[in-house]
Amino acid sequence: MTNHPINFEEKLAKLRELWSPRVVAELNDYQFKLVKLEGEFVWHRHDDTDEAFVVLRGELEIGSRERTVTLGAGEMFVVPRGIEHITRAAHECHVLLIEPRGVVNTGDAAGALTAENDVWI
Amino acid sequence: MTNHPINFEEKLAKLRELWSPRVVAELNDYQFKLVKLEGEFVWHRHDDTDEAFVVLRGELEIGSRERTVTLGAGEMFVVPRGIEHITRAAHECHVLLIEPRGVVNTGDAAGALTAENDVWI
Repeated sequence: MTNHPINFEEKLAKLRELWSPRVVAELNDYQFKLVKLEGEFVWHRHDDTDEAFVVLRGELEIGSRERTVTLGAGEMFVVPRGIEHITRAAHECHVLLIEPRGVVNTGDAAGALTAENDVWI
Repeated sequence: MTNHPINFEEKLAKLRELWSPRVVAELNDYQFKLVKLEGEFVWHRHDDTDEAFVVLRGELEIGSRERTVTLGAGEMFVVPRGIEHITRAAHECHVLLIEPRGVVNTGDAAGALTAENDVWI
């Protein structure tokens, strides 16, 4: 067992890039990742896994083709596997992602926003 | 995809009992559970899984036989599988637990504090 808790604010202070998830902890084969979002991501889906979003600061929109869910700080949402979705934030928003190790942020939609995986902060 | 985010404060307002984890979301075969803690739990371990704690309010001590880690709000910690541990909170503390579905809160140590599983709030 390690000595120290993981402090989200301390970790976020080291994170400069938007849309670049950074691993802060692992739980079995799952990872906890911090990410800063602002603007609009790309439509994509993850066919093999659900994806959990916990908002730590700011406001996050998660859109599916059917509806949009808006999350504030202290709220979470799970996007079910296979559901095409997009994330948007009018202002900078800080999010804790929980998903299996190896999930690519852009899912089935590769592109410029695809982030390197397994980068710890 | 559902319509609404999960709001931790709203869920916690419905939770009266201490040491009684309540499921608020599932991610594949993992569960997110809210729990209110005050006082001292029992020494126990989970041989088959790590266990993640995210503190939402108050201060939580997680002790192993070797050391104690103290978490405040906005901090998390993962107890590795097989490590005997105990949780303590001098004052009421609100925690988000993340662990596989079916994990018994008291692990290998049954007793009065063993909580029913799969109770949603």
